[in-house]
Amino acid sequence: MLPLHPTHLELGVCDYPEHVPEDRWADYAAAQQALGLRFVRIAEFAWSRMEPQPEQYDWAWLDRAIATYAAAGLQVVLCTPTAAPPAWLVAQHPEILPHGRSGQVKTSGSRRHCDLSSPIYRQLSRRVTQAMAERYGQHPAVVGWQTDNEFGWGDTAQSYSPAALAGFQEWLKERYITLDTLNEAWGNGFWSMEYADWTQIPLPHQAVSEINPAHALDFMRFSSDQIVQFQAEQVTLLRQLSPGRFTTHNFMGFFSGFDHYRVTEGLDFASWDSYPTGTLQALHEWNLADPHLAHDFARTGHPDLTGFNHDLYRGMLGGSGRFWVMEQQCGQVNWAPSNPLPADGAVQLWTAQAWAHGADVVSYFRWRAATMAQEVMHSGLLRHNQRPDRGYAEVEALNPQEFPASDVQNRVALLHDYESLWLYNLQPHAEGVNYWAQAFAYYRALRALGIDVDIVHPDSDLSGYALVVAPALTLMTPERARHLEAAALHTQMVFGPRTAFRTSSGRTPETGQFGDLAGLVGAALLHYDSLCPGMVQDISRATRSSPAGTLPSQLWQAQHWAESYELEGAEALYRYQGGPLNGEAAVIRHGNVTVIGAHSESLISEVLKDLLTGSGLSPTPLPEGVRLSRRGGLTLLQNWNLHPVHWKGQALAPVSARLLEPAEVTL
Amino acid sequence: MLPLHPTHLELGVCDYPEHVPEDRWADYAAAQQALGLRFVRIAEFAWSRMEPQPEQYDWAWLDRAIATYAAAGLQVVLCTPTAAPPAWLVAQHPEILPHGRSGQVKTSGSRRHCDLSSPIYRQLSRRVTQAMAERYGQHPAVVGWQTDNEFGWGDTAQSYSPAALAGFQEWLKERYITLDTLNEAWGNGFWSMEYADWTQIPLPHQAVSEINPAHALDFMRFSSDQIVQFQAEQVTLLRQLSPGRFTTHNFMGFFSGFDHYRVTEGLDFASWDSYPTGTLQALHEWNLADPHLAHDFARTGHPDLTGFNHDLYRGMLGGSGRFWVMEQQCGQVNWAPSNPLPADGAVQLWTAQAWAHGADVVSYFRWRAATMAQEVMHSGLLRHNQRPDRGYAEVEALNPQEFPASDVQNRVALLHDYESLWLYNLQPHAEGVNYWAQAFAYYRALRALGIDVDIVHPDSDLSGYALVVAPALTLMTPERARHLEAAALHTQMVFGPRTAFRTSSGRTPETGQFGDLAGLVGAALLHYDSLCPGMVQDISRATRSSPAGTLPSQLWQAQHWAESYELEGAEALYRYQGGPLNGEAAVIRHGNVTVIGAHSESLISEVLKDLLTGSGLSPTPLPEGVRLSRRGGLTLLQNWNLHPVHWKGQALAPVSARLLEPAEVTL
Amino acid sequence: MLPLHPTHLELGVCDYPEHVPEDRWADYAAAQQALGLRFVRIAEFAWSRMEPQPEQYDWAWLDRAIATYAAAGLQVVLCTPTAAPPAWLVAQHPEILPHGRSGQVKTSGSRRHCDLSSPIYRQLSRRVTQAMAERYGQHPAVVGWQTDNEFGWGDTAQSYSPAALAGFQEWLKERYITLDTLNEAWGNGFWSMEYADWTQIPLPHQAVSEINPAHALDFMRFSSDQIVQFQAEQVTLLRQLSPGRFTTHNFMGFFSGFDHYRVTEGLDFASWDSYPTGTLQALHEWNLADPHLAHDFARTGHPDLTGFNHDLYRGMLGGSGRFWVMEQQCGQVNWAPSNPLPADGAVQLWTAQAWAHGADVVSYFRWRAATMAQEVMHSGLLRHNQRPDRGYAEVEALNPQEFPASDVQNRVALLHDYESLWLYNLQPHAEGVNYWAQAFAYYRALRALGIDVDIVHPDSDLSGYALVVAPALTLMTPERARHLEAAALHTQMVFGPRTAFRTSSGRTPETGQFGDLAGLVGAALLHYDSLCPGMVQDISRATRSSPAGTLPSQLWQAQHWAESYELEGAEALYRYQGGPLNGEAAVIRHGNVTVIGAHSESLISEVLKDLLTGSGLSPTPLPEGVRLSRRGGLTLLQNWNLHPVHWKGQALAPVSARLLEPAEVTL
Repeated sequence: MLPLHPTHLELGVCDYPEHVPEDRWADYAAAQQALGLRFVRIAEFAWSRMEPQPEQYDWAWLDRAIATYAAAGLQVVLCTPTAAPPAWLVAQHPEILPHGRSGQVKTSGSRRHCDLSSPIYRQLSRRVTQAMAERYGQHPAVVGWQTDNEFGWGDTAQSYSPAALAGFQEWLKERYITLDTLNEAWGNGFWSMEYADWTQIPLPHQAVSEINPAHALDFMRFSSDQIVQFQAEQVTLLRQLSPGRFTTHNFMGFFSGFDHYRVTEGLDFASWDSYPTGTLQALHEWNLADPHLAHDFARTGHPDLTGFNHDLYRGMLGGSGRFWVMEQQCGQVNWAPSNPLPADGAVQLWTAQAWAHGADVVSYFRWRAATMAQEVMHSGLLRHNQRPDRGYAEVEALNPQEFPASDVQNRVALLHDYESLWLYNLQPHAEGVNYWAQAFAYYRALRALGIDVDIVHPDSDLSGYALVVAPALTLMTPERARHLEAAALHTQMVFGPRTAFRTSSGRTPETGQFGDLAGLVGAALLHYDSLCPGMVQDISRATRSSPAGTLPSQLWQAQHWAESYELEGAEALYRYQGGPLNGEAAVIRHGNVTVIGAHSESLISEVLKDLLTGSGLSPTPLPEGVRLSRRGGLTLLQNWNLHPVHWKGQALAPVSARLLEPAEVTL
Repeated sequence: MLPLHPTHLELGVCDYPEHVPEDRWADYAAAQQALGLRFVRIAEFAWSRMEPQPEQYDWAWLDRAIATYAAAGLQVVLCTPTAAPPAWLVAQHPEILPHGRSGQVKTSGSRRHCDLSSPIYRQLSRRVTQAMAERYGQHPAVVGWQTDNEFGWGDTAQSYSPAALAGFQEWLKERYITLDTLNEAWGNGFWSMEYADWTQIPLPHQAVSEINPAHALDFMRFSSDQIVQFQAEQVTLLRQLSPGRFTTHNFMGFFSGFDHYRVTEGLDFASWDSYPTGTLQALHEWNLADPHLAHDFARTGHPDLTGFNHDLYRGMLGGSGRFWVMEQQCGQVNWAPSNPLPADGAVQLWTAQAWAHGADVVSYFRWRAATMAQEVMHSGLLRHNQRPDRGYAEVEALNPQEFPASDVQNRVALLHDYESLWLYNLQPHAEGVNYWAQAFAYYRALRALGIDVDIVHPDSDLSGYALVVAPALTLMTPERARHLEAAALHTQMVFGPRTAFRTSSGRTPETGQFGDLAGLVGAALLHYDSLCPGMVQDISRATRSSPAGTLPSQLWQAQHWAESYELEGAEALYRYQGGPLNGEAAVIRHGNVTVIGAHSESLISEVLKDLLTGSGLSPTPLPEGVRLSRRGGLTLLQNWNLHPVHWKGQALAPVSARLLEPAEVTL
Repeated sequence: MLPLHPTHLELGVCDYPEHVPEDRWADYAAAQQALGLRFVRIAEFAWSRMEPQPEQYDWAWLDRAIATYAAAGLQVVLCTPTAAPPAWLVAQHPEILPHGRSGQVKTSGSRRHCDLSSPIYRQLSRRVTQAMAERYGQHPAVVGWQTDNEFGWGDTAQSYSPAALAGFQEWLKERYITLDTLNEAWGNGFWSMEYADWTQIPLPHQAVSEINPAHALDFMRFSSDQIVQFQAEQVTLLRQLSPGRFTTHNFMGFFSGFDHYRVTEGLDFASWDSYPTGTLQALHEWNLADPHLAHDFARTGHPDLTGFNHDLYRGMLGGSGRFWVMEQQCGQVNWAPSNPLPADGAVQLWTAQAWAHGADVVSYFRWRAATMAQEVMHSGLLRHNQRPDRGYAEVEALNPQEFPASDVQNRVALLHDYESLWLYNLQPHAEGVNYWAQAFAYYRALRALGIDVDIVHPDSDLSGYALVVAPALTLMTPERARHLEAAALHTQMVFGPRTAFRTSSGRTPETGQFGDLAGLVGAALLHYDSLCPGMVQDISRATRSSPAGTLPSQLWQAQHWAESYELEGAEALYRYQGGPLNGEAAVIRHGNVTVIGAHSESLISEVLKDLLTGSGLSPTPLPEGVRLSRRGGLTLLQNWNLHPVHWKGQALAPVSARLLEPAEVTL
């Protein structure tokens, strides 16, 4: 068996032997080996080939494919094929089809036309997983498994089917035991929503208007648990039938549909699919008033969008320190409104950044561009005519051995939590307010100060950190509050707006924000202001002695959101100037705890810089697109811009990265 | 019993005892009384608490709540709870659920999940109303009733259910008696739409393309009549079981879904729910090319948007002269895309304006911000932590006795009519054309000239007016034409574009516009031009003697719409310059009647100013955001701007109002 | 019998006697004759009047109407009324209703509520067609037939009904014979989409995400074939029962829903409905970055939008050289977001252009504006009050005999193909990429160079052309490639981006672009770049000798799309400058074949100008809005601008056209 983690960066590729004539397989495998690739991920979506008729398996082709890769010295990662149920299954069991938010049945014709709360779908997924694991579980070339593919893709994490309705009602019964408890937790006295029978509870869609957020929150939890259970059934079989092999799943970036922490439990590590140019779409989805970012980085993606997800998936499993990039963009994608070619050097830059953020393996998607079906316009390492595409030469020039592997653990943590995400985005209350956008603003501020960041769950061990930043931790429980209080004894903590605004059922504490966290923060919420696009709220540093009537020397401006506080032990570091919040506290400090109530990118950066300096973490302001990422004593200096940058006496070529030895890092 | 109308402004509050632990009730009631509030509106949406199981009533909690308010000296307005059917009712009778335009069933989970054309829903609503009225109808603390809540909220005024289909076919049979009559009225020879059986008539939705406007118009009338009948059943019970108490309903601003005049019949007065900052959304819905209004007045709302609705609801019941603001915003709302804090002083300004426009009572929504469910981010007088919010202090500083009550009756009327509204908006024909926007343009022009306006139904008594303005009276009948002819004998009348373009079934007269009104207007429609955004049509004053080739000294510009006339007795006051309408009449005059065919805000103002001056009404041009409103000999001078204004020697503080004595009003 | 084609331009009108009282018919007919109209098209949509109850026909009114027209000397074009099934038919057979993409049934209430794949609808349509043809097929005043009306109107070319599903599965069985063939053709190994039974194949809608384009393509073919078969059934009856009369159909402009070439087969000529101001909407639908076009030509439409469709329909039936404008806008329309009045002179200009592009007949829509139903705001030659509208006088002043008729055949052909259109628009891959927009860019470039263009099917006879331009010929077969190779022996050919990117089943060739056309082109695709809005890619002329480091003297800029080529015999005429395609070939030439890989309007014009000059076709650059169109030795010089233009010494009045004699055309 392989050790779980390699000693240096390894490369891989996603391949689909079933998409090409068999007479090319050996040549492809040899070329993959020659290119320096070690892993090949296969069999994703190939259910109709493995089981062309119910329980009639055809393994011959897959036997030969695996043998071909093995003969070329490649190691195989197998996928359970359950993300693409075959047509016979849909015909026999149309009840497995997911139902969309507006009630429509989502039919076959693409992929993921399956409802994970369907008992029959669960059963048939177990059956094919077991058959596959029995066949290949102990094959010497098979080193690991990917469960399914991209859970939630195509907006399928939630289904509004009869199966989901029955499952949701059952799930609620287990969670709340009595309807009184549920009615109280959800606040159903509001608008006469009280339930007198479990079967009266509808799925939270198609209501006349907004749904009770408590209702919607529990449905998100339920739906997430369907994925947890679905995958656990596969993992149980794989553990039993394929001992010594790893299991992982390939998640998507910035995906909100389920609790990735819970879904990762039971896996050996998390993987994700990194498409930096496509990920720029996130900026549009967040309605960020920053169109230049999407334009300027159209050919590379933005370093912090990709970096955020690297750090996110590295932080799964309690901060495991490692992850795979299971699918790495190596040319243009096909799923954004426009799909520019990556810049020269981008594939190398992306690979190096992934390593620097803790990737064990970077596996390119895909070997050869498909000549059929939905993804014909998506690139691969080879073009349709089988000649190398632009990314091929960049991979060829990479030497993975230059990138030694080790766990990544940083001194600054950013707290992330899917339940807070759901609550934020269920009731944003202001245009431009979005959980991801808010988290990203803090993350980007840290990265722009040259700081490496761990992204971890708020309930995880925070003992190693000098600074903990919680940009949007809106859901608070008594236990979590105690945990954070303990952490604050030895670390600086920063909270963003709406911290502890919600209880675990999505209500607001009867004592108002900060509820259970009030003691730690030393303050209470005073007002929150939701600023229309184009409106700003000025902020200045709080001073005790500035003469009346003098203008503050520096002003910051909040956009989208500004909340103010009543001090109950805390002191005001910044105050609002003018407007309805005039004179009220905008940023407060209480012991080791700082709360930033205003959404202002420059103010966030200013406060973080002061705290980092105070913690001895030496913030280093970096130009836009220039980034530092550190792993195991090495520093990767990156320029993501299309133009050269001169910085601290160094000339950085466009779209490039270089490794700095420790001695060089006196920048 | 109370007299129906108070002698000065009274204040009230909307409270929800069922949302908080009972041990707070007495403190809340005492605080309400101490704040100067006299009325408390309760029990809205509390059906599941009153009738937790079918016909098993629980009155104990409500007995105690009413007793608590009564003990504190408050007077109670009770609501029938029928806007929020409980879960057991939906489970037993899912056929009560409304169907949306695209055919989907609108499920429970929020509120108003009820189809008023459902016979069983009607029956169960009568049952709970009767039980409630029997219990509290003669309670000494109960002074009045609100029927239901905000009819039509959540786009429920129309339902496309089987019950609605059956009801609509029956309603048509009663209206038209024979299918020949219907086919002729609707013009069904067009596109082979003739019906040979009443059951062949579909609901007007889900057709391949646009629906016959005659068909859509009658469905709007039918749907409106469902609300009329539904409410009448409640009012009948309340009149019988709760003698001496008033009945009202809390309407919404700028709501198009039903005929508010007909729904108000049978009530004692109209009420409406005033949310000035949220109402700014109307500007977006109307696609007005005036984005600065929404921005500049984001923290106060625009005075004329709020004023229009005050005047609209005051004008119900044949111009009753009084109304209530049943829900008055007193902090930020939660239902616009962004929800800014009101400016300091806004709550006082809103309250004073409501009084000046004829409000008897202003009742704040709500006492304490909810800690649960959909409205957790909506403000109240108290914050979540039960401390006073920003509006509380403003209410505290108000002295309602400064504001004496009296009927309001003005010298200028604006004619408003829901059937014309429906026809306008069914076929706008040009981007930016919208009934409300057109009516608002005339209303705003009058208010900006310092003129108080009554908004009344075109068929109401017009004998008291010096000037009658009908901005968008597109539906004309012979009876209405005779009524207007009679009115024009003694008053100046102004009509806007598309006047009398439609008959009562939504056709155009065989003689074209102005149909039955042609004699009064002294003209016929020549052309109408639908101007794309960015296109304008110049207009100049008509002169008989300007030398050929000389440019007119002043030009106005039409946007969106320009129509021209053939003169048949009228004279042209303004003519189009250039373009396809070059030289044709844009504004015409015939005796006391003026028609403005072009949509031009400055031209509208110019024409109105001349007419007002001619009528001795002394127009007073006001700066943006400065307004004058008069009631009972007092003038309320208001500044809705966030900045101070100097006007006629007076310094007006930002967001403020002051009462001017008669002697001061020589401005 | 009439000869099929008139000797000079003839005029007609669309009339609806069933919309007005019968006592007006004779006056209307007399006035039509007096206005110089020769043809009147009637009975469209009048099914409910002809067959008020099943198989109970009422011909009396239509007998009288035809007699009235005949008595006035007018010739009648009759329409089969099948575009508007009557209410009794829907009531008896609701299964004829079409189903929309989201699964909803499209109900009656407007028109075209019929699914052409419904067997019962086919049967009842044949029945009424037969009855009508038996009654009027040999009537001396009846000279021709229009089948149905505007196939596909209201997005009905595709229906997603059970009938369509059954028909589609049957159609696939006939096309592919075996499922193995279908699975291979569609590439169904991708995402486990292989079918094991014909009944497993769904309609291509409501899938979780994007549909396999092969699947979608075949559904477009199937749906198009439904129209082909539906019409063929009518034409068979008409040929049999109405000998000597022509049959045609009135198509819409820029309509993508079916293969117009196949639907025109079996007709005598194509007709189309020309609404120049409404057609400007196409610019919005194509997302062209050219908003000024829509604004500047709001009152005339753009000459090349209208001209494209004239040339398109003239090119049906293998380049028949003639067509009718069955509905010609003669005032404002009612179906665009805004509907401006046409400029003075526009009706004459449109009529003259239609003639110059080969129209035999221009038939105005409609005689009198409707006073009822959906089109009350659409203009006619008469206004609602029966007085002449603006277009009437323009028609009156026309002398059709000035416009002699003859076949039109030009020296330049533009290849157009609905299967390529479907494939393009199924996977545009970049914002702003759209088949029509791309075809229009080449067409407009040619017209702006003063060149007359035939638009023909790529498989038609190309032997008469000096230059053949294929802007977007993405679907290539071996047979088509041989055909083009043969044509290229004697003509210059120009191909645009993505040429031969797809096989007939929508896959990409295993050898990549250019597949079967590679030999002719002498190159292979290297890269394609999808440019976001705002991104450009520079291009310069390829030179062998420019000194290193010198900037090219002229740069062009690609938007939206840029593809580059590996040369395999071809030479590079232009190369990309900078960016990921730096130095790669942008425009290539191989013998008579040129490929333009970049979307750049100025570069397209430059390349075409050089080729035209080389072919002796004398390109004449024209100012915006000025156009030359030639027919039978006469040249029509047009100015579509609202302002006068001075060009080559001639003063062109605004919105005007004049005929130049051959001697004048030395411009």
